[in-house]
Amino acid sequence: MSNLRVGSAFDAHQIQAGKECWIAGILHEGQDGCEGHSDGDVVSHAIVDAVLSACGLGDLGSFVGVGRPEYDGVKGVQLLGELKALVGKHGFLVLNVSAQLIAQTPKMGPVRGECERVLSEALGAPVSISATTTDHMGFTGSGEGRAAIATALVQV
Amino acid sequence: MSNLRVGSAFDAHQIQAGKECWIAGILHEGQDGCEGHSDGDVVSHAIVDAVLSACGLGDLGSFVGVGRPEYDGVKGVQLLGELKALVGKHGFLVLNVSAQLIAQTPKMGPVRGECERVLSEALGAPVSISATTTDHMGFTGSGEGRAAIATALVQV
Amino acid sequence: MSNLRVGSAFDAHQIQAGKECWIAGILHEGQDGCEGHSDGDVVSHAIVDAVLSACGLGDLGSFVGVGRPEYDGVKGVQLLGELKALVGKHGFLVLNVSAQLIAQTPKMGPVRGECERVLSEALGAPVSISATTTDHMGFTGSGEGRAAIATALVQV
Ligand SMILES: [Zn+2]
Ligand SMILES: [Zn+2]
Ligand SMILES: [Zn+2]
Repeated sequence: MSNLRVGSAFDAHQIQAGKECWIAGILHEGQDGCEGHSDGDVVSHAIVDAVLSACGLGDLGSFVGVGRPEYDGVKGVQLLGELKALVGKHGFLVLNVSAQLIAQTPKMGPVRGECERVLSEALGAPVSISATTTDHMGFTGSGEGRAAIATALVQV
Repeated sequence: MSNLRVGSAFDAHQIQAGKECWIAGILHEGQDGCEGHSDGDVVSHAIVDAVLSACGLGDLGSFVGVGRPEYDGVKGVQLLGELKALVGKHGFLVLNVSAQLIAQTPKMGPVRGECERVLSEALGAPVSISATTTDHMGFTGSGEGRAAIATALVQV
Repeated sequence: MSNLRVGSAFDAHQIQAGKECWIAGILHEGQDGCEGHSDGDVVSHAIVDAVLSACGLGDLGSFVGVGRPEYDGVKGVQLLGELKALVGKHGFLVLNVSAQLIAQTPKMGPVRGECERVLSEALGAPVSISATTTDHMGFTGSGEGRAAIATALVQV
């Protein structure tokens, strides 16, 4: 019997005028960011949830807890670093993660490679980043918010 | 060549005032449930579709059929039990399933472990449950409905 | 360490009155199609993005480029054929793909088997197709658009 496990997750946040825009581990200049007591990085959050779910180790809420001030404004890269430590402690190896930003902004094409390098280094495993829009439909199409999906493959 | 296969699925239902709320295999007291001629359990439905898709055995519609009265109000746990029998008959082994509720209600944190035990026992394979909101955006954010995604890994 | 990788993706397009409806590799007579400089086949697009992401080979945008007239109206089957050649050239083997149409129309039950044959042959790997609605909610429920998700498992 194979010792592999899969996990997937979705995340969504409202866009907040004037907040720094951290998406997929990097700062996107000239863009509004996402709400949340963290940095609002939907891509990093979906990755954390997908890996935790693959490992059966809970979800983002149980991982960072609620009302813990040390996670105010926490960056995606820091979350992925803590995630790497947690899954390693439990004996899991992350084989890879695939994540996709679902949003009208920012443009990911020019920075996709940089995001992949930053997130892969933080997690210690290959992270693929893609991006799509909802063709101006729904809450991600109107500019009200951003969403992301991620899928992870891990070895026990 | 590896004998593994992956499958994923999405499901969504409207919330129906006064109906019992069965989500992820358990009854959530004090919550409105979801429409559908079944119990409306979006998490269980996404799991069934993800496993069937991984196995190439059709989808929920072909699995339960249409207009079959024996599936009126059918519970997620029963569906997962029948799914277990079907995939076993075809020689598949489910390695694990990861599912996520996308909804403002019910709160899953306190009952996540119970849902995982109930669904894992019914399916005969590890099921991870997580939950997220859409931050009050879209039809899952307004309270109009609930959605779920699931991903399954199976061995031929 | 396992040589497997997973990838997932989402796609969405607006419905365009009077355009041919190509979904999951086949023409659906009597249905309006989807916008886009391609044929608007959300299922095929999600499959391409999921496989590319699993392989770490970019996304649909980098694959077909922007403003390349040879991709005006390009069909999903042609994209999957080019994808097969690309991933083969890089030494990947696609184990399987699972894709789901999220839309009120067209009815996929009667043509699911045909779609699976057409797409599997084009990609050279098993493709499972399922379909669900959003129960008349959101942009896929109102008939404004269609969406799809896909997950791919590949071997390095
Ligand atoms: Zn988040
Ligand atoms: Zn359902
Ligand atoms: Zn598309």
